[in-house]
Amino acid sequence: MSQLSNYTYDEINIGQTASYSKEISEQDIQLFAIVSGDNNPVHLDAEFAAGTPFKERIAHGMLSGAVISAAIALELPGPGTIYLGQTMRFRRPVKIGDTLTVELEVTDKRDDKQFVTLDCKVINQNGEVVVTGTAEVIAPPVKLVLDPPHLPTISLQD
Amino acid sequence: MSQLSNYTYDEINIGQTASYSKEISEQDIQLFAIVSGDNNPVHLDAEFAAGTPFKERIAHGMLSGAVISAAIALELPGPGTIYLGQTMRFRRPVKIGDTLTVELEVTDKRDDKQFVTLDCKVINQNGEVVVTGTAEVIAPPVKLVLDPPHLPTISLQD
Repeated sequence: MSQLSNYTYDEINIGQTASYSKEISEQDIQLFAIVSGDNNPVHLDAEFAAGTPFKERIAHGMLSGAVISAAIALELPGPGTIYLGQTMRFRRPVKIGDTLTVELEVTDKRDDKQFVTLDCKVINQNGEVVVTGTAEVIAPPVKLVLDPPHLPTISLQD
Repeated sequence: MSQLSNYTYDEINIGQTASYSKEISEQDIQLFAIVSGDNNPVHLDAEFAAGTPFKERIAHGMLSGAVISAAIALELPGPGTIYLGQTMRFRRPVKIGDTLTVELEVTDKRDDKQFVTLDCKVINQNGEVVVTGTAEVIAPPVKLVLDPPHLPTISLQD
């Protein structure tokens, strides 16, 4: 796995962009249900979901939030960022197998507190906007280049 | 597991409250890292985290967002809710073993669109506020009482 690195406050410019993509799998939805506790059948039961306005299973809205937060933590500013706040508008449902791409753009910097504001847009593989929002962070004061920790392997059993 | 039920738009009153609690385990943090892709060592590596301002491993900020979204999806309004938007301010770190309680309060209703606004506060087991925010949802038009779907059992292997 590739190393993690960041942009320090001084290396960040207004207009700077970054992106991060993730495919949303059935397992992701199951894991998000377990992590959050939200076991609503619209996310987990295809037969139930067929009778809803969405017609098929959809991902939890906040799973897109999780992917936005990963974009900030991994790409811009990256490791060492302190997350202050996030707004989100959920504009379209996310389905199993969709590939989400988070597009980040720096829109403001505040030198006295090292605050950075980022515009956040999540688009799917069809170019449709699924989430929009704004993040506020404290950018890292020092450069970091890190080897990512080992993550355990998961197995799910019905 | 207990049944899931909701409050329809007409059953919801301004000032109505609900709460939802979840303990944040080490496994939750590992699963959130896998689901989001955010494998920063401040969440996963105790030795690395000891050298950060947090002194120990902290949960991903958006894991608290996941718990807020579960409170809305399970408790108020509950199943059938359509999530429109969420704001969050991350005010204190969440550590492994913390028990988070989401307190929801209805602050506004908009009859023409069935929109409901909820104040969201997440407190830890010491009564400290860790996240504040506001959610906007479309409340369910019809009453639902559901048996929750079966969730798979997880095992993690290093």
